[in-house]
Amino acid sequence: MADIGVGLIGTGFMGKAHALAYRAAKAVLGDVPEARLELLCDTPAERARQMAGQFGFARCTDDWRSLVEDAKVDLVSITTPNRMHREMALAAIGAGKHVHCEKPMGLTLAEAEEMAEAARRAGVKTMVGYNYIKNPAFLHAQRLVRDGAIGRPVHFRGWVDEDYQADPDLPWTWRARLDEAGLGALGDLGCHLVSMAHGLMGPVESLVADMQTIHETRPLEGGAGHGKVENEDTATALVRFRGGAHGSLSTSRSAWGRKNRLGFEVHGTTGMIVFDQERMNELQIYRNEGPAGEQGFKTILTGPAHPPYGHFCPAPGHQLGINDLKVLEAGAFLRWIGGGEKSGPDFADALEFEKIIHAIATSARQGRRLVV
Amino acid sequence: MADIGVGLIGTGFMGKAHALAYRAAKAVLGDVPEARLELLCDTPAERARQMAGQFGFARCTDDWRSLVEDAKVDLVSITTPNRMHREMALAAIGAGKHVHCEKPMGLTLAEAEEMAEAARRAGVKTMVGYNYIKNPAFLHAQRLVRDGAIGRPVHFRGWVDEDYQADPDLPWTWRARLDEAGLGALGDLGCHLVSMAHGLMGPVESLVADMQTIHETRPLEGGAGHGKVENEDTATALVRFRGGAHGSLSTSRSAWGRKNRLGFEVHGTTGMIVFDQERMNELQIYRNEGPAGEQGFKTILTGPAHPPYGHFCPAPGHQLGINDLKVLEAGAFLRWIGGGEKSGPDFADALEFEKIIHAIATSARQGRRLVV
Amino acid sequence: MADIGVGLIGTGFMGKAHALAYRAAKAVLGDVPEARLELLCDTPAERARQMAGQFGFARCTDDWRSLVEDAKVDLVSITTPNRMHREMALAAIGAGKHVHCEKPMGLTLAEAEEMAEAARRAGVKTMVGYNYIKNPAFLHAQRLVRDGAIGRPVHFRGWVDEDYQADPDLPWTWRARLDEAGLGALGDLGCHLVSMAHGLMGPVESLVADMQTIHETRPLEGGAGHGKVENEDTATALVRFRGGAHGSLSTSRSAWGRKNRLGFEVHGTTGMIVFDQERMNELQIYRNEGPAGEQGFKTILTGPAHPPYGHFCPAPGHQLGINDLKVLEAGAFLRWIGGGEKSGPDFADALEFEKIIHAIATSARQGRRLVV
Amino acid sequence: MADIGVGLIGTGFMGKAHALAYRAAKAVLGDVPEARLELLCDTPAERARQMAGQFGFARCTDDWRSLVEDAKVDLVSITTPNRMHREMALAAIGAGKHVHCEKPMGLTLAEAEEMAEAARRAGVKTMVGYNYIKNPAFLHAQRLVRDGAIGRPVHFRGWVDEDYQADPDLPWTWRARLDEAGLGALGDLGCHLVSMAHGLMGPVESLVADMQTIHETRPLEGGAGHGKVENEDTATALVRFRGGAHGSLSTSRSAWGRKNRLGFEVHGTTGMIVFDQERMNELQIYRNEGPAGEQGFKTILTGPAHPPYGHFCPAPGHQLGINDLKVLEAGAFLRWIGGGEKSGPDFADALEFEKIIHAIATSARQGRRLVV
Repeated sequence: MADIGVGLIGTGFMGKAHALAYRAAKAVLGDVPEARLELLCDTPAERARQMAGQFGFARCTDDWRSLVEDAKVDLVSITTPNRMHREMALAAIGAGKHVHCEKPMGLTLAEAEEMAEAARRAGVKTMVGYNYIKNPAFLHAQRLVRDGAIGRPVHFRGWVDEDYQADPDLPWTWRARLDEAGLGALGDLGCHLVSMAHGLMGPVESLVADMQTIHETRPLEGGAGHGKVENEDTATALVRFRGGAHGSLSTSRSAWGRKNRLGFEVHGTTGMIVFDQERMNELQIYRNEGPAGEQGFKTILTGPAHPPYGHFCPAPGHQLGINDLKVLEAGAFLRWIGGGEKSGPDFADALEFEKIIHAIATSARQGRRLVV
Repeated sequence: MADIGVGLIGTGFMGKAHALAYRAAKAVLGDVPEARLELLCDTPAERARQMAGQFGFARCTDDWRSLVEDAKVDLVSITTPNRMHREMALAAIGAGKHVHCEKPMGLTLAEAEEMAEAARRAGVKTMVGYNYIKNPAFLHAQRLVRDGAIGRPVHFRGWVDEDYQADPDLPWTWRARLDEAGLGALGDLGCHLVSMAHGLMGPVESLVADMQTIHETRPLEGGAGHGKVENEDTATALVRFRGGAHGSLSTSRSAWGRKNRLGFEVHGTTGMIVFDQERMNELQIYRNEGPAGEQGFKTILTGPAHPPYGHFCPAPGHQLGINDLKVLEAGAFLRWIGGGEKSGPDFADALEFEKIIHAIATSARQGRRLVV
Repeated sequence: MADIGVGLIGTGFMGKAHALAYRAAKAVLGDVPEARLELLCDTPAERARQMAGQFGFARCTDDWRSLVEDAKVDLVSITTPNRMHREMALAAIGAGKHVHCEKPMGLTLAEAEEMAEAARRAGVKTMVGYNYIKNPAFLHAQRLVRDGAIGRPVHFRGWVDEDYQADPDLPWTWRARLDEAGLGALGDLGCHLVSMAHGLMGPVESLVADMQTIHETRPLEGGAGHGKVENEDTATALVRFRGGAHGSLSTSRSAWGRKNRLGFEVHGTTGMIVFDQERMNELQIYRNEGPAGEQGFKTILTGPAHPPYGHFCPAPGHQLGINDLKVLEAGAFLRWIGGGEKSGPDFADALEFEKIIHAIATSARQGRRLVV
Repeated sequence: MADIGVGLIGTGFMGKAHALAYRAAKAVLGDVPEARLELLCDTPAERARQMAGQFGFARCTDDWRSLVEDAKVDLVSITTPNRMHREMALAAIGAGKHVHCEKPMGLTLAEAEEMAEAARRAGVKTMVGYNYIKNPAFLHAQRLVRDGAIGRPVHFRGWVDEDYQADPDLPWTWRARLDEAGLGALGDLGCHLVSMAHGLMGPVESLVADMQTIHETRPLEGGAGHGKVENEDTATALVRFRGGAHGSLSTSRSAWGRKNRLGFEVHGTTGMIVFDQERMNELQIYRNEGPAGEQGFKTILTGPAHPPYGHFCPAPGHQLGINDLKVLEAGAFLRWIGGGEKSGPDFADALEFEKIIHAIATSARQGRRLVV
């Protein structure tokens, strides 16, 4: 397999995660093309230079436009703030590159639609960073649901909470602006939950929602009064899935003590499955089988019996981490680009997730049920 | 203190719980009047006779009307199916008795309102069986919230799930009928959750809800086809509290594996409190205090430092059980009747809880937000 | 069934637990004789009078000798400090009474042997307060082990920890004296663990042990220097069971945060069972069955499928408490006295448990393996 | 910093882990020399070739002797079966290479001593694969203990269990032979526990132990009868630490359901710390501070406040995995070789751990307490 030249824009939280993931993917997975770490972009140039040295990129730049057009770059990975995704992705697509973009794709649904349409027309391959659905524990849950291990799924409860905006004294930042950050908790967190709900229950048909801005203003840096928080701290939706199940989706960025509390319950006609990302190597399942006195929730520790865990470790219960999920995402994209099977979510798939978070916001503003 | 003559109607799940509770209350609590187990009613008469012997009632009857009018009965305890509550309670109130009634008070909101109004007019004392809010762990949560241990409460999530109607093959029973059972999961379970939400967050201002009947028909006994299920298996509401907080309330009677999953999260501006009735002697609290690296959810095991736990056991972590909560409820009622302080919920208080479950059902049927 | 006259000595922690248990036993269980609360003894007389009123005893006394000889007392319940057990039990046995004695039976093994021998000769029935082995969760574990649910049991780990002597600043009390308290953690806690190990694994054949006094002195009340702590804060033993399994038993009374941490792991050739008294309504089981990817520890919530839980509540997962275990113990004794089947542990059974804690102490002092 | 040429022997479980770790170390940590993946050895040659391609090694060989003498190799990483460690390590040391060896160092204590002595004399740097003590959660526990967060540590309980030899029907392999595998559970697992106990409590002074071979024979492949199992399935030791604390160490390779159950309790005079590798991103701590009713075990999720977690992810609770621990180990070794501070365990440090497992085996065979 020919190797694939990677151009990465951004060196922050997700930038580093992408760099590590592309660096490790072939060594871990074996059956994917080598990612050639070709070009790294950040500003200022010195930052790009330093991180290229650390991450092992061959070259660096502070000009993302030159990156997306670089002849040796086959795949552009976009990990910049959300407001820049659209412009960069469209440019990369325009240059015929495959695009790996962090979630959410855009600030608005219109942006995401434009990006998905551009990719479709250009025929390039895309991937969006919904890494939690790459977790072997989640994949196992999907298989169990699909195979009827809990009967017909009839109800879903999901939540995704963190506490990075819980402190009332945190200063006002761009995160609070609709035109910089777009949605609040829904965009940062809620879309991950939607990706899980969709993977387990199928598409949402309609929903009614509520949102809340807990901290309506935040102190401006420098003591110059307070700035308005324009987006939501929490959002909750009552959803109906096309398959007939009902459920709820909840998110908060102001939930003290929750660090990555992304989880769900799938209620089936013969059992239940429960997951919590804060214990991402565990899956709980209850099945109505055997005598009543022997029933209970079983805690499954993931292992080689839950592919693709075995690529990381041949022993069960030894635990994968968050960066391993990104290796699976990068590997899936490399495999697809290299001629293997598609394993999304690409822009078209991700658009379906992002429609839901925008529908939640719209429903909450309008106070009525929306058909999605 | 003079003792108080108890007349108990019903000897099933709650009937036995009331009998044990009144039998134990003074011995456990010390400062309440003795409950004189005066008269037990059930049908047939033989059942009443047998259970009176077991429970230690002085007399028995199969005629509840004679019980509510019995001169030696001061307090009538009603543990019969919900459809009988109204008639029995009104008769007991009419006879000037104090009334302890299981929840929900009535099949409909109109019934509950009629009962509350009758009790108010008659000036008798009443108590409704919302026993979970007597749990020392819950009382501690209330104290913590009230004392600002988690700052200002801004969000609430609650759930109450069981699985007694999860099996699609269970036969059709009276439980499925609106005119026999009233609401489904909301009436059996949801009202307990409302009692907790109210105790922690104060009254609900408005809500929008959805309901679902998972198993729309059930096989009739005897193989004669199927009967229609008229009430809900699940219900979920997005609520706004008068105090400004938002939240959600969820209930299901078809949640496999959940046996008494009544719990909540209270999100505050400086912390969070989490509770689960299936581990009813534990309370979890997170506080934003001390260095970041030392923060985490603390699991508090209830003990004598959480009154009234100490009446049952002087050692922490030794665990109370469900029947102990009923002792606290019966004891609170005896104390009030005996001249002590009121500790509800009486009919007026319980009416506020039951308004909410009926509002949830109405909102779900109408598909719109209701102001409560 | 004729009722059985109960004379209770002591009104403290265990005194109250016995009073509540005898008061409730028939009402809960149905098939046991009524316990007539005949006579309560404590000092001073005023305390006895007050508590007799609260608990519902017909009479009271401050003279335990008159109690054990009282004609209307059939059963003497001894809940006084350990150093008094022997004398009271021998007197009660001498008077032909059945004896319910708290654990441990005596300060020394010699005392326990004398008590067991006296009971045997007199032909009276006895019961010792090993209430944790009455837990439906424990009984279920026993059934599972006996029925081969985890194959042949091959290894055992047990622990029982509390923290009532963890604080170095606690004053010196009688608890620290060998001639008042006897053993330390072993006598208070360790013997409970032995009762469980014995019930699951059968008798111990040999052991080697170590003990430790963490806080070698404690401040005397009134600031008059320090008193010596003569007994152990922790003890651990490596045991071999007659059936061939190995294992370990650990106890500490100085384990911060542990409130009633009595638990075990039974390792079998096809599975494992795990229990923790601090979550006394749960049992965990792992079975090597089905595909590797579906295996995990199952958490069983006790319910009516785990007798005798159903006597307390017809709904699973609703939780029993510590006092319910005492009801089961008192009920078992009443049933036996009333002509029903024996359900120990009587003095002879308990002697086997107490031999082990004394063997642990002896092994630790001598530094060598002992055959029990 | 000059890069460091890595020669890796072995491509199995640990071989892959080392390859991934050296590949990632600089990219993750930043401040360590680049590991140049120079030479990979395995047999047959085709396997070496294939895995070199996957892992990204520049060259491959099937002759480990040529690897240890290769001029471009600075660091030899040994991940072969235990019986080969000694010969390979001595050869690498003889060639003046730095050596990274998996644990345990040798089959026997004599082997380990010879290796440590050779390294000392040659002045090369060494590292042994005790990766669990690189866990940020463990390092935080160490800091807490050292800083007195739980007072003086007075008692320790540790366990390390897996179930890879639990099934009686597993065929006989080299694992069962003393001269191929050396110790059983103690060598595979127990030494990890010792590394933790040592890191928290300091050196062991004396111990008394017991061992058990649960499955005394195993079926030979091909149906030719049974082979004898020469080493232990479980071992347990009662230890006394030089600092005065007591404790116990337990291990089993036949503990159904345990996949990587490596954990401990440190009992201190003012608190307790609890850890379980199966939830490797969590640490529990109880502190005797504040009112009794507010005390409880706190579950800390590791994050950037627990260095070096932040190198992997800037967000707490997002979880590290087992391979991340190996990155920390490889990085520590690279840093030291590159002129930075030592961060062991080197051969001399690891020898102290391995002395303990051999002392446990000796004590168990001799049936008496040994001073270490």
